[in-house]
Amino acid sequence: MAPGDSPIGSLPADQLHAALRDLVTEAQELNVGAVTELDQVPTPLEFMRYVAQNRPFVVRGGARHWPARTQWSNDHLRSIMGDQLVTVAITPNGYADALVDGRFFVEPFQKQMPFGEVVDILEQKQAQRQLTDSTARPPPKHYLAYHYYIQSQNGNIEGDYQRLKREIPADIDFATEALGYRPDAVNFWMGEASSVTSLHKDPYENIYVVLAGSKTFTLYPPTECYCLYERFYQAAEYHEEETASSPSSVPRLVLKPKDDHPDIPWVSVDPLDSSPETQVAHPRFHQLARPLTVTVNSGDMLYLPALWYHHVQQRQDIRGRVIAVNYWYDMNYSAPLFPYFKFAQNIVALVHPPK
Amino acid sequence: MAPGDSPIGSLPADQLHAALRDLVTEAQELNVGAVTELDQVPTPLEFMRYVAQNRPFVVRGGARHWPARTQWSNDHLRSIMGDQLVTVAITPNGYADALVDGRFFVEPFQKQMPFGEVVDILEQKQAQRQLTDSTARPPPKHYLAYHYYIQSQNGNIEGDYQRLKREIPADIDFATEALGYRPDAVNFWMGEASSVTSLHKDPYENIYVVLAGSKTFTLYPPTECYCLYERFYQAAEYHEEETASSPSSVPRLVLKPKDDHPDIPWVSVDPLDSSPETQVAHPRFHQLARPLTVTVNSGDMLYLPALWYHHVQQRQDIRGRVIAVNYWYDMNYSAPLFPYFKFAQNIVALVHPPK
Repeated sequence: MAPGDSPIGSLPADQLHAALRDLVTEAQELNVGAVTELDQVPTPLEFMRYVAQNRPFVVRGGARHWPARTQWSNDHLRSIMGDQLVTVAITPNGYADALVDGRFFVEPFQKQMPFGEVVDILEQKQAQRQLTDSTARPPPKHYLAYHYYIQSQNGNIEGDYQRLKREIPADIDFATEALGYRPDAVNFWMGEASSVTSLHKDPYENIYVVLAGSKTFTLYPPTECYCLYERFYQAAEYHEEETASSPSSVPRLVLKPKDDHPDIPWVSVDPLDSSPETQVAHPRFHQLARPLTVTVNSGDMLYLPALWYHHVQQRQDIRGRVIAVNYWYDMNYSAPLFPYFKFAQNIVALVHPPK
Repeated sequence: MAPGDSPIGSLPADQLHAALRDLVTEAQELNVGAVTELDQVPTPLEFMRYVAQNRPFVVRGGARHWPARTQWSNDHLRSIMGDQLVTVAITPNGYADALVDGRFFVEPFQKQMPFGEVVDILEQKQAQRQLTDSTARPPPKHYLAYHYYIQSQNGNIEGDYQRLKREIPADIDFATEALGYRPDAVNFWMGEASSVTSLHKDPYENIYVVLAGSKTFTLYPPTECYCLYERFYQAAEYHEEETASSPSSVPRLVLKPKDDHPDIPWVSVDPLDSSPETQVAHPRFHQLARPLTVTVNSGDMLYLPALWYHHVQQRQDIRGRVIAVNYWYDMNYSAPLFPYFKFAQNIVALVHPPK
């Protein structure tokens, strides 16, 4: 303790709350409350200004001319990729890597399947949806009740999806030139409307390109960490029910806690939940946070800056698919954002202990 | 208070100290501990990367070819500017806008003088210094005991120094193109080795060009605010002693507190002071802070990023002058740095109240 320091143990928590509230509102007041809309891709220098400001933008039609946008019919994808085994996240409700029962952080059941089968399932589910006369609707095959999402974020374009690699750009020109390095990972995504990505953040500068369907992003800047009630949750995952495996190998899913796994820190709030319970439990989320919402349509390109919390909903195209590709560029850990973000997160953890 | 929040009034200050210490050391560990040396000016994009990272660099010889560097002899300056009245900061010790007696924040005596007289005085002081045989040295005229510094930072190139405007660039090409706007202020500086600028920060992206002599900057990043012991000090200024004014109008200077003036927040530490007293009073400054030091020679160009604390010493050239020009570009208040900096400053104020 230095001369002039406050005596240890005497700090009023309300002053910390006030400082955290000021951080949230000041950043809000200094920024426009919307995602900037561009009608052409930025120059590298323009992009670097957005990176420096840590602000998102969407380029309407930024990927309009990508061949994949028109070429990636289900038949084309099956012809190239049909027999390729890929990892699919399967859940009973569309929520993979999300909270269940306010208690568990649940990972999906992960299954290796031929890619063609995934396309078939999405097509069948779409066909069912299109039977508007419900009396004419046949009872769904039980595996169609599950939700399938290709969401492996391990640079899968170099792995399971290597056959699609030459059909999309290897990187995003303006971003590679601006940052001075190539993407760390490129990921292929495919799913349907029922799949929802729960609110989280990534330590990457993210260029997100939708190629079929649309995705609606609900975004919170890193400065709003105080509003999101990050806590530790018990790890769990969906398992195939052991007794029920059939030759068609469609899993029946049950939630199983991972007993020996460390707890997982995750955001407690859900932008789709405005129940009285969450209004009481998470007042800062409902009263102080100010999300930006943007729908990214097929052919659009979103810049999602490092450490922005994002929640994603999607709508399939008429063929039953939502397809996207994203480019993850390493964030610059030497810039002020990262250490300041961690600092604010540490202060939040003092006023609202995550355990 | 939300469910799960810590009870009001129970937060241990040592956890805040730990979080602040982590902020300082993490930023140190994620960055190289030196000012980057460039041998040519950056492109706009390269510059924008430094801005995004909030990191300084020096361009050796970056202003080597500026005509002012060779043209600005004392005779040339007198011929253009001799009769122009300018504002000069005069102090008994070289410390303008600095702490005195650990009690006062003291502004210099500010005098309007013909620019030619300032040049004459700097020349005379230099001539005295060059009399190496001290027995041959005449007693100095008393006004030569004072310290003169042209340091008005009000965009003076549009004011007192307008006649010099066409002899320097109106802006810094790479910075104007990178940021997308022109400098908010361009300032002319002239003084001698005895003038020291005390540790402070400015809310500007600063391009600092030395044209005669050299300047040594001691720099602390904004994340080290915790180490600098910002406090409030009583405002004071140097006045001309009323009884002693003579026709030559050289002031005798006395320090006078400004009684009705609000106190001024200022950094308590001095990088030139390593006395036992400051070691005890400011342990974080001596044990935790990690300054970057860079000497900017005539013809060099320094990028001093927004909110970096800087202390400046200087050495005159053989003609007795240190001359510099700086370009202040508005900082981007919408980027994360500003709200996070203020947040950390608020937390520092909780553990070390500035009043």
